[in-house]
Amino acid sequence: MSAEIVNPRSDSDTDQELIDPAFALHRGGKMEISATVPVRDRDDLSLAYTPGVAKVCTAIAEEPSLVHDYTWTSQVVAVVTDGTAVLGLGDIGPQASLPVMEGKAILFKQFGGVDAVPIALDTKDTDEIVETVVRLAPSFGGVNLEDISAPRCFEIERRLKERLDIPVFHDDQHGTAVVTLAALRNAARLTGRSLGELRAVISGAGAAGVAIAKILVEAGIGDVAVTDRKGVVHGGRDDLTDVKRELASYTNKAGLTGSLEDALDGADVFIGVSGGTVAESAVATMAEGAFIFAMANPTPEIHPDVAHKYAAVVATGRSDYPNQINNVLAFPGIFAGALQVRASQITEGMKIAAAEALAAVVAEELSAECVIPSPFDERVAPAVTKAVAAAARAEGVARR
Amino acid sequence: MSAEIVNPRSDSDTDQELIDPAFALHRGGKMEISATVPVRDRDDLSLAYTPGVAKVCTAIAEEPSLVHDYTWTSQVVAVVTDGTAVLGLGDIGPQASLPVMEGKAILFKQFGGVDAVPIALDTKDTDEIVETVVRLAPSFGGVNLEDISAPRCFEIERRLKERLDIPVFHDDQHGTAVVTLAALRNAARLTGRSLGELRAVISGAGAAGVAIAKILVEAGIGDVAVTDRKGVVHGGRDDLTDVKRELASYTNKAGLTGSLEDALDGADVFIGVSGGTVAESAVATMAEGAFIFAMANPTPEIHPDVAHKYAAVVATGRSDYPNQINNVLAFPGIFAGALQVRASQITEGMKIAAAEALAAVVAEELSAECVIPSPFDERVAPAVTKAVAAAARAEGVARR
Repeated sequence: MSAEIVNPRSDSDTDQELIDPAFALHRGGKMEISATVPVRDRDDLSLAYTPGVAKVCTAIAEEPSLVHDYTWTSQVVAVVTDGTAVLGLGDIGPQASLPVMEGKAILFKQFGGVDAVPIALDTKDTDEIVETVVRLAPSFGGVNLEDISAPRCFEIERRLKERLDIPVFHDDQHGTAVVTLAALRNAARLTGRSLGELRAVISGAGAAGVAIAKILVEAGIGDVAVTDRKGVVHGGRDDLTDVKRELASYTNKAGLTGSLEDALDGADVFIGVSGGTVAESAVATMAEGAFIFAMANPTPEIHPDVAHKYAAVVATGRSDYPNQINNVLAFPGIFAGALQVRASQITEGMKIAAAEALAAVVAEELSAECVIPSPFDERVAPAVTKAVAAAARAEGVARR
Repeated sequence: MSAEIVNPRSDSDTDQELIDPAFALHRGGKMEISATVPVRDRDDLSLAYTPGVAKVCTAIAEEPSLVHDYTWTSQVVAVVTDGTAVLGLGDIGPQASLPVMEGKAILFKQFGGVDAVPIALDTKDTDEIVETVVRLAPSFGGVNLEDISAPRCFEIERRLKERLDIPVFHDDQHGTAVVTLAALRNAARLTGRSLGELRAVISGAGAAGVAIAKILVEAGIGDVAVTDRKGVVHGGRDDLTDVKRELASYTNKAGLTGSLEDALDGADVFIGVSGGTVAESAVATMAEGAFIFAMANPTPEIHPDVAHKYAAVVATGRSDYPNQINNVLAFPGIFAGALQVRASQITEGMKIAAAEALAAVVAEELSAECVIPSPFDERVAPAVTKAVAAAARAEGVARR
C-alpha cells in the first residue's frame, strides 16, 4: 500500500485529505439525485406517486413510445464499465473505477445537460456484459461504454448496437477519434493542406487507435498506418486479432511493414495513443511541417518540447499544454444531440459531423497553439449537439 | 387506447395535459442527476476527473472498502423492478413501470436523503433478474426490489440476500409489513390491549400478505390466519406453493379451514391486501372493538363508512381518509439507517425496530383517527433511521 492511501479505518478527515485535495473532494462521492417536481404535500404526492402516476403508467403500457415523454429515460445515459481499462491504471475492477464513472457522469451533466448513471459491472465476460446491458436498457436513453479493455470492447459495442435501438457509444474509441479528427482538420486548415495530402501514423492499436484510424479513413486521410508493439499492422502478419486484421484491410495503403520508427520516416502526422515513448531521432525523420498529437497521459509519447523542434502543430492529452485532446469536447454534445432527436444509434456520419462542428468552433482564433477549443469554451457543446442532431436527421436515424 | 392517452406524435402540450395535471407533471420525468462538486475550470476538472481521480481509484483498488468513503455508492439504492406487479395495474412491463420507480426514487430522496436510481429490467426470468442485480451491485449501496410479482419476488429476494452483502429489501413485502405493524401497535395501545391478545385475519397471500403475517408472528400476535382466493391457508390444503406451505407452518394456530368470511367470525383484526371486497355481513361478525385495515387502493376491501360501524380503529391505503398505511413512512428511513451504518443486510430485528419507532412517533396525538403518522410528519424518517441504525448495530450487521 502506498503512502498516499488513507487509513480505511478512520471515518474522520485524514492526513491524506489534508495533503491531497482530490481525496477531500471525493468524500461522499461527486453526485446525487434531485427531484425535478415538488413533493411538499398530499396533493403533490398524489400526482407524482399514487394514485396519479397510475394514469401515466397505463398510458405508456398502451403506447410505449410515451416513455420518452413522461420519464427521465430520454435524457439519461448509463455509463457502463467493467473496470478493466481505467485511465492508465488498467484492470482495477468495477468498484475502483467508480470515481472515474462519477466524474464522467458529472461532465455529461455539466457540459451536455445529460443525466448519467455509473454502472460498474461485476463481470468481465463479454456475453454477460452484453446480456446485462440489454436487460438494463428500458431504464436508459443511451449507453456510454467506458474503460472496457480491447479487444472485448469492440465485440461488446458491436453486439449491443445490434441488439438495442438506443445510442451505444464507446467513448474511449469514438470520443477520442472525434476530437482527434477535429484537431487534425484545424491543423490542416492552419497549414493550408487537405486531409488527403497527409500520411498519418498511429501508435497504439487498442480502442482509441482503431477508432481514430477508422474515422481518419472515412474523413479522407491520404494514408494511415497503425502500429502495435510488433510494429505496423499489415495483412502479412500472422499474429493479428480479428479487429487488427480488419484494420489492416483499410489502412496502410503504402504497404509499410516495419517498426513505428520506420513508419515515421517522412510521415506528416503522428498520433500517439499507446503510452510508449518515441526516440527523438525518429521524430526528426518526419516530414517538414508535421503534426504531433502525443496523447498519452500523464507522459506524452513525445515530450512537447521535443515535438516543437520538428512539428508545426503539437497537441497532447494534458491540460497544462496547449491543444488538449480531451474527450469532454465530444461526448456530452454527441449524446445530447442524439437524445434530442431520439436517435436509434450514433452513426459514423454523426461522429464526423461532431468533429466538423468541434473544429469549426475555432474560427479566427486558429493558430498552432489553438487547433482545438478549450473544454470550458461554452460554444462547444451547443455546436456539437446541433450538428449531431442534424446529422441524425440527415441519416434517417432520428425518431423525432 | 383510452380517451385519456395523449397523442404520442405530438411534442407540444396536449389536451390531455391540460385536462390531467399528472401528465403535465410527468413531462420529461421527475428526476435528474446533480453534481455535488464544482466543475468550473481546469483546476476543478483535474481534481474531479483526470489526473486527480486516478489517486482515488488507486486507493480503492488497494483497499476496496474505501469505495464507500469516496463514491456515492454508500448513499445510492437501485430501485429494481421487472414491471410485473405495478400498483394495481399488474404486469405492464418495465417501461410502463418507470413513472412509479421514478416516484419511488424521489420519495427516497425527499424523505430519507437517499439517492435512488430506477432500474426496470427487460426480463421476468428469476435467474436472469438475480444474475443481473448481482452484476450491478458494485455500483450501489443497496437494492430496493419493487413491484415484482409473487411468488418470484420471494425467491429473488432470498437469493439476492444470499449473494450480496448489501441491504436487499422488497418494499411491497416489508415496507407494508412495517407500517402495518406500527399501526397495529398503536391501535392496541389505544384500546389497552397487547398484540398477544389479538387474532388477525389477512386477506391476500401475495407479497404484502406473507410479509405482514411474518412480522406479526415475530412481534407476538396472538394468532393470524392468511386467506387467498381459496380461503384460509392451512397445511391440509394440497394446492399450496412452497411459500404458502411455509406460511401455513407458522400461522393459523387456531386451525381454521374455511373461507375469509368464516375466519372473520370473532376476529379482532382484519388486514386487507387483496383488492377483493368483504361483505358487510361478515364484517359484522368480527369481535367487538375490532381493527379494520382495508388497504386495497383505490377501493378498500371494506369501505371506511362500513368499517366504522363495527370497528374501533379503521385504516386504509388512501390519503383521503385518516390512518393511511403508506410505505413511504418506512422505506426511506429503513434504507437511510441501514446505509448510515453500512449494514450488510436488513434483518427482521431492524424491521421491527422501524415499526416500533414509527409507532412511537404518535405520542399524545394517539386516537382512533391517528394510529399512524402522516407521511409529511417530519419526525418520522429521522426516528426510523435512528432506530434501524441502532438495531443494525445491536444485531451485528453494522460495518461502521
